Amino acid sequence: MRISVVKYSIFFLVLVKFSPVFATRTFKENEPCKRVVLYYHDILFGGNDTANATSARATNGTGLGKFVLGMLVVFDDPITKDQHLHSTPVARAQGFYFYDMKTTYNAWFTYTLVFNSTEYKGTMNIMGADMMMEKTRDLSVVGGTGDFFMARGIATFQTDEVEGFKYFRLKMDIKLYECS
Amino acid sequence: MRISVVKYSIFFLVLVKFSPVFATRTFKENEPCKRVVLYYHDILFGGNDTANATSARATNGTGLGKFVLGMLVVFDDPITKDQHLHSTPVARAQGFYFYDMKTTYNAWFTYTLVFNSTEYKGTMNIMGADMMMEKTRDLSVVGGTGDFFMARGIATFQTDEVEGFKYFRLKMDIKLYECS
Amino acid sequence: MRISVVKYSIFFLVLVKFSPVFATRTFKENEPCKRVVLYYHDILFGGNDTANATSARATNGTGLGKFVLGMLVVFDDPITKDQHLHSTPVARAQGFYFYDMKTTYNAWFTYTLVFNSTEYKGTMNIMGADMMMEKTRDLSVVGGTGDFFMARGIATFQTDEVEGFKYFRLKMDIKLYECS
Repeated sequence: MRISVVKYSIFFLVLVKFSPVFATRTFKENEPCKRVVLYYHDILFGGNDTANATSARATNGTGLGKFVLGMLVVFDDPITKDQHLHSTPVARAQGFYFYDMKTTYNAWFTYTLVFNSTEYKGTMNIMGADMMMEKTRDLSVVGGTGDFFMARGIATFQTDEVEGFKYFRLKMDIKLYECS
Repeated sequence: MRISVVKYSIFFLVLVKFSPVFATRTFKENEPCKRVVLYYHDILFGGNDTANATSARATNGTGLGKFVLGMLVVFDDPITKDQHLHSTPVARAQGFYFYDMKTTYNAWFTYTLVFNSTEYKGTMNIMGADMMMEKTRDLSVVGGTGDFFMARGIATFQTDEVEGFKYFRLKMDIKLYECS
Repeated sequence: MRISVVKYSIFFLVLVKFSPVFATRTFKENEPCKRVVLYYHDILFGGNDTANATSARATNGTGLGKFVLGMLVVFDDPITKDQHLHSTPVARAQGFYFYDMKTTYNAWFTYTLVFNSTEYKGTMNIMGADMMMEKTRDLSVVGGTGDFFMARGIATFQTDEVEGFKYFRLKMDIKLYECS
């Protein structure tokens, strides 16, 4: 009788090793392993507002269309937990965006969230298309360090406020599906 | 006899939890979980061809070498399933490339494929070196959203057509190894 | 007695499929599956040193602050296994960095390591904040090809030498946690 038990056990190990669960991991969109909602504030440098500005044009629009296609903005922007620009930042967003369409305002972002709060230390690296005309749009969290070591996930952008080219605020709803 | 069976079972669970299969996943290059072959068309803005142009120089070459090192091009390029520029696009590629070598033409890309077809909705985020002198070169798919939620894989580029700086077409053979 | 054994086995399979091990993989920071220590050399083009220069400014600083915020440098830099600039390169680093703070020198990098040595063929794609004032800082390895197929991990930067804007050298301690 004992011998028969051992035989069955070997069978189950084999089953586990070749299970499709390993090749295709099934993340569930509504079950992130971590979620952080943040607000991103961008104050574009106008030439004589150094004290307030948090970003600046590295290049101007190219003239292809009327929506500043090719204008690239480098930023070191404050990130807050609520909508208020003057709340204590929990992180900085360092990176750039540029405009890329000739028929409408549309942008592309790549940046690092650098956390330095009592709650979190570490970074998240994010990139993707910011289709400004959509109500919400999803970018990719492609890596992380420190408290976000090896993270991956989705950063959902929503425009929260726009004041021409002077100021805008985005809600970033960040959902991680790989945590560690 | 029953007690003996339970003992064995605990032993196997432990084996599974520390198995090296979890640390090192073994993707097979010739067994992607999804594959899409696409064509990328880039028509560089010349100054008075706004209707046709799909990309524009944000910066010019720097003068280091004779191969426009430092020229950075922002694009919103049509993606088709066949080689024909005027086929109905299945996606847009939004991002940029720049030239980066002083001894030959060589580029670096980062962009988002924004799908909007009956077949696919969602995005793929891609980056990597485009070593134009190689017959094929591999870039990384580092993330995705929508139908490509949490995707990772390889985008193999092949130059399909070049007409000076006016137009070029790339074949992009995209193989995903993480699907969900 | 035999029937009782089969019943238990089904129970264990179910346990494995819903184990939290699948959702949250537990990488250990001090146990990478591969580690490579490399040195990155950057010689910024000054206008008449084409033979030596390995990088060039695509844009200049914007005037926001005194730390060249907005200066973007495209590079094709040699990578060596020791600190010596003239050692045989084992790879090229192709990509760019830009400065992004108004209060200090601080940069952001995105690039591809293109390996072409007897030891390694293939690429690694890397991005993240280079907080130059920190002793060490972690960037993300977000993908790889060839010998680094589907790699992910951390690239820890340490400044090794700086000669104004002419030359700098970084130690890059690359630890992969996803290998295949």
